[in-house]
Amino acid sequence: MFYNDKKVSIAVVRRLPRYYRYLGELLKNDVTRISSKELSERMGVTASQIRQDLNCFGGFGQQGYGYNVEYLYKEIGNILGLYNGYTTIIIGAGNLGRALANHSSFEKRGFRLIGIFDINRDLVGEEIRGIKIRHMDELEDFFKENRVDIGILSIPKEGVAEVSQRLVNLGIKGLWNFSYADLNLEGDVEIENVHLSDSLMTLSYKITQHKRW
Amino acid sequence: MFYNDKKVSIAVVRRLPRYYRYLGELLKNDVTRISSKELSERMGVTASQIRQDLNCFGGFGQQGYGYNVEYLYKEIGNILGLYNGYTTIIIGAGNLGRALANHSSFEKRGFRLIGIFDINRDLVGEEIRGIKIRHMDELEDFFKENRVDIGILSIPKEGVAEVSQRLVNLGIKGLWNFSYADLNLEGDVEIENVHLSDSLMTLSYKITQHKRW
Repeated sequence: MFYNDKKVSIAVVRRLPRYYRYLGELLKNDVTRISSKELSERMGVTASQIRQDLNCFGGFGQQGYGYNVEYLYKEIGNILGLYNGYTTIIIGAGNLGRALANHSSFEKRGFRLIGIFDINRDLVGEEIRGIKIRHMDELEDFFKENRVDIGILSIPKEGVAEVSQRLVNLGIKGLWNFSYADLNLEGDVEIENVHLSDSLMTLSYKITQHKRW
Repeated sequence: MFYNDKKVSIAVVRRLPRYYRYLGELLKNDVTRISSKELSERMGVTASQIRQDLNCFGGFGQQGYGYNVEYLYKEIGNILGLYNGYTTIIIGAGNLGRALANHSSFEKRGFRLIGIFDINRDLVGEEIRGIKIRHMDELEDFFKENRVDIGILSIPKEGVAEVSQRLVNLGIKGLWNFSYADLNLEGDVEIENVHLSDSLMTLSYKITQHKRW
């Protein structure tokens, strides 16, 4: 993984959203400046980790001054592409698709939901947060009229490969995949698989090892 | 974070579920033995990282032989506590709660859903996968009759603090929290917060930096 010409590990990239969230909280509480030591204590990582992570993207800190919270918040948002106005569509209007459609934090992060699709004709025309559910047959026409950046896949895993390839053929840039399925797609697309059970297993570890702490 | 008397970083712990998933796939494909080099290629991490990670928990590999897939799979499952038969309840039977109740992979990982609760009396008595939705008023009685290990919180963030404290008072061991809320709880409980938007922001980064690769 690269940032400009520099190699950046995926582990560092995955920590950026967390920095962004914490800085957002600080801003809300009118904190304008923070040392890496203070930030590290709040976030439970070492100060040197924070410095190392941020150095991958240019630094942003001043010796003895610390970080300007608003500036760092905006810079990280920029690196994450949150000001690019990415549009999303949800494929699959079941419980998970509905939960995601109603998740207000995505819009707060700059992602705009512009379409919801399903294969179930009984759902077509129903509205979720003002957005009509369309039939999958309308997908190609929808792409002719709209710029769609991200496809959110909340469908059973059996259908994921076919739907994904169709979206890639239509020029989608990224797939956010909630179905456990290995995607081997032809074409140029970024994929982020969500494995909810990983997080549950981590909790299970914490509980299991708890008595030994 | 500790394993037995050894300090283990949370980053290592978070990689364990991923090893577990990959080894499970290998087992399904009748692979009985794998070198750290081969495993690393499949998982996209370095072989030395894998060795380092697994060394935190005792090693499991034999020089020149590689890893016994089934043995490693079971050992990691054991470290993660997946054979402890942890029970879960879902608080909040909205779209997200329903999606989680229907998520079959949790049971496959050894977690047993035994109750679903909501404050909406209209939902009480409805069944999801054979489990009746109960009113929140029945929570205390339910704990008297059942061992509940993990509470899955799929409720709006406004209610999270109060409900969490109530669950902790009832002796719950872990909270899997899908609402964005900082939990400051009195008592002995493990918490795992799920930040879905972190994953979406990571995808956004990948798309944004894509042209520069």
